Amino acid sequence: MIRITLLGSGNVAQHLIKAFTKSETIEIVQVYSRKKENLASLIDFDKIVNDFEELKEADLYIIAVSDKAIAEVSRQLPFQNRIVVHTSGAASLDVLDVKNRKGVFYPLQTFSKSKEIDFSTVPMCLEAENTFDFKVLETAAKSISNVVHAINSDQRKALHVAAVFVNNFTNHLYQIGHEICEEHQVPFEILKPLIQETAEKINTLDPIYAQTGPAKRNDSTTIDVHLDYLSNENQKNIYKILTQSIQNNGKKL
Amino acid sequence: MIRITLLGSGNVAQHLIKAFTKSETIEIVQVYSRKKENLASLIDFDKIVNDFEELKEADLYIIAVSDKAIAEVSRQLPFQNRIVVHTSGAASLDVLDVKNRKGVFYPLQTFSKSKEIDFSTVPMCLEAENTFDFKVLETAAKSISNVVHAINSDQRKALHVAAVFVNNFTNHLYQIGHEICEEHQVPFEILKPLIQETAEKINTLDPIYAQTGPAKRNDSTTIDVHLDYLSNENQKNIYKILTQSIQNNGKKL
Ligand SMILES: NC(=O)c1ccc[n+]([C@@H]2O[C@H](COP(=O)([O-])OP(=O)(O)OC[C@H]3O[C@@H](n4cnc5c(N)ncnc54)[C@H](OP(=O)(O)O)[C@@H]3O)[C@@H](O)[C@H]2O)c1
Ligand SMILES: NC(=O)c1ccc[n+]([C@@H]2O[C@H](COP(=O)([O-])OP(=O)(O)OC[C@H]3O[C@@H](n4cnc5c(N)ncnc54)[C@H](OP(=O)(O)O)[C@@H]3O)[C@@H](O)[C@H]2O)c1
Repeated sequence: MIRITLLGSGNVAQHLIKAFTKSETIEIVQVYSRKKENLASLIDFDKIVNDFEELKEADLYIIAVSDKAIAEVSRQLPFQNRIVVHTSGAASLDVLDVKNRKGVFYPLQTFSKSKEIDFSTVPMCLEAENTFDFKVLETAAKSISNVVHAINSDQRKALHVAAVFVNNFTNHLYQIGHEICEEHQVPFEILKPLIQETAEKINTLDPIYAQTGPAKRNDSTTIDVHLDYLSNENQKNIYKILTQSIQNNGKKL
Repeated sequence: MIRITLLGSGNVAQHLIKAFTKSETIEIVQVYSRKKENLASLIDFDKIVNDFEELKEADLYIIAVSDKAIAEVSRQLPFQNRIVVHTSGAASLDVLDVKNRKGVFYPLQTFSKSKEIDFSTVPMCLEAENTFDFKVLETAAKSISNVVHAINSDQRKALHVAAVFVNNFTNHLYQIGHEICEEHQVPFEILKPLIQETAEKINTLDPIYAQTGPAKRNDSTTIDVHLDYLSNENQKNIYKILTQSIQNNGKKL
């Protein structure tokens, strides 16, 4: 049994509370939240605290607050030499105060409060300063997920940057597709099966082999037609740069 | 019962043969293929022809050959005033020879021979020159798919351009994510659940509302860290342009 205290009441904190509550090997000792009522529906009200001085002993403290607040929260903890981790892909290990044993417990997924997540498939990226602490993080991670990786700070940075490309930037391309549909009065719905299939394809095929389209085929007629059709300079520019990048990629194969 | 002849033996032709074969309201009269053996495993060998002169009468001729070959194939058809359609998102209606009644039967999905597709969810985008011909296309399309739309040439062009963004360009972003992972020795596998979730999210949320990440939050510290981390100039450039585009988008909300 690992005794865990969470700090934060946002997307990640709430999903972790739900996941740990279901696990039989985890006991949630307390949850720190500036506004207790944020968590009232998720956990025993007695376990919610809004004063660091009320924090009891636990095996593991998970700070799931905004990146900018991690340092401040870790500094305010009124104890030392315990395992204190953050959940951020972007923040370095060193934003955590040195008085405790630092670590990272980064769930590589996109969370929003309104959407349920099957935590068992969320890759958990873990980092600790020593083997004992790592084991504690590993046991906690395995209690909620089947996918657990040791990821050092450099690798985590790589994953975070890569995640910006495959998640944030990809969503922005969906948004551009949406805009083009709206401009020409076509329902965006029609593109949804294609979007799903594009994402699914890379489960069985490396993206470089899954690449198709006019840029891949060096079909300059279609590329010119498309550039001519796009009325928005920003869309045109993105079209050109990604087409160029795919064409350069082709040369690597 | 609609009697259909297909011309072509590539990805789309093969998927259409499989789908129509399962349908009870469709009879495949013949399939034209330059190399008969390409289709031997899919259909009665007697029905495969490689000479246009052998083509029998049918209610509908579907030309599923490379975009560049559509005009030539339609010109070589030894009959007139029948319904002849192509399956391309990119080609105009007018590439088809005027001697027959022109139309489009465009399945908006990405096909590869090695991967099965559930045709019932593939959006079928149809265009014809008159109501009667449209009804024939509609009946044929509904026999294999639950998603059938009347799409004129301008709308089809919009969909095709939008598809380049959400499919070809998105796959290229996956490829960049893959490269970043390889460079830093992290398994690309770890990003796959995030990729699936990003695609799934827009089934319930418009992409503009699903947008997250440093660009959306105007988190210039993280953006600078990422740009500094990327060693590849092309990746840096794409990162900058998409970040800028998301930031400009934010102003629209
Ligand atoms: N969202 C994701 O998809 C995702 C995925 C993986 C990792 N992460 C990481 O997980 C962490 C939390 O992200 P999130 O998405 O859960 O954020 P969020 O939903 O925006 O919630 C932020 C939380 O931080 C608290 N907070 C902010 N400033 C604070 C301060 N000075 N003192 C105490 N608490 C403070 C907020 O409390 P109030 O409600 O009182 O303001 C809130 O509970 C971040 O490090 C993030 O990088 C997020
Ligand atoms: N693949 C997709 O994801 C997709 C999706 C929607 C629509 N489409 C459209 O569907 C059509 C076919 O695409 P595809 O992906 O099936 O292509 P493909 O797999 O590359 O197959 C092309 C076919 O065209 C034939 N062909 C090429 N030149 C020819 C000529 N001069 N005379 C006769 N036949 C010729 C080829 O015959 P040989 O084998 O004898 O060379 C082959 O059967 C295109 O208009 C495409 O835009 C494709």
